[in-house]
Amino acid sequence: MPECPFCQIIEGRIPAYKVFEADDVLAFLDINPRNPGHTLVVPKKHAESLFDLSEDEAGKLFSAVRKVAELVKNGTKADGISISLSSGRAAGQVIPHLHFHVIPRFLNEGPAGLESMLPVKPINKEALEKLADLIRKGEEKEEIGFSEEF
Amino acid sequence: MPECPFCQIIEGRIPAYKVFEADDVLAFLDINPRNPGHTLVVPKKHAESLFDLSEDEAGKLFSAVRKVAELVKNGTKADGISISLSSGRAAGQVIPHLHFHVIPRFLNEGPAGLESMLPVKPINKEALEKLADLIRKGEEKEEIGFSEEF
Repeated sequence: MPECPFCQIIEGRIPAYKVFEADDVLAFLDINPRNPGHTLVVPKKHAESLFDLSEDEAGKLFSAVRKVAELVKNGTKADGISISLSSGRAAGQVIPHLHFHVIPRFLNEGPAGLESMLPVKPINKEALEKLADLIRKGEEKEEIGFSEEF
Repeated sequence: MPECPFCQIIEGRIPAYKVFEADDVLAFLDINPRNPGHTLVVPKKHAESLFDLSEDEAGKLFSAVRKVAELVKNGTKADGISISLSSGRAAGQVIPHLHFHVIPRFLNEGPAGLESMLPVKPINKEALEKLADLIRKGEEKEEIGFSEEF
């Protein structure tokens, strides 16, 4: 995957501000930070999506994210931490190499959190019940009609 | 922790649209969804912050998040998935019980991803180098002067 910029960083072919490294994981600063200290955590083995990792691999990766979050919080004296992962173009994923964002947050920075990420949508009880059922059955991978009513 | 609404859901004292349950983890619909199928994943044991979990505990919890993300993606036929965790009031955390948001995303929903969460901030090479150093040393928990220049 020679064109993947994160693989190139992992291979040392393009520079990065590395802040943490382990056998399977690398963390480096996002050079377009949402806040100073905004860090990306990536698996060294190329994987595009969260769904390319097993549950066990995803868990091990997140253990490192937890570690990096502590480093970022201590290193920037942040008041809080936002962690996010966008899987798929529909979720805003641009670089096709799975990455967690670890973003230090400060009480004096203004409006916080998910608030502005997506607007909350009105929903009724029937729609909630149907959605819960669809999601419970999600592992069956059967074709379930997904109507436009949602 | 009788006032914690998520503990009340876990104890069955207030209802929820549960979609997944394991020994240590419960997942249920967010009744104020960002998109239909927006699901919350919580540890059954009360923990306020990610930093109240060990790296190992955080990893195990995220293994379940990975599982729930697959259920949500299949169940809602989503094109992508956003996963986020807000740790601390500065990050927008309102309910004081650690929770992951698992949000199905659709190609036809309009602007996606982190874009609107926080604006990107301009930053120079010197600031990046200093931040990387502060974060690398973050585990030492020593007092590092954190200037207003960031």
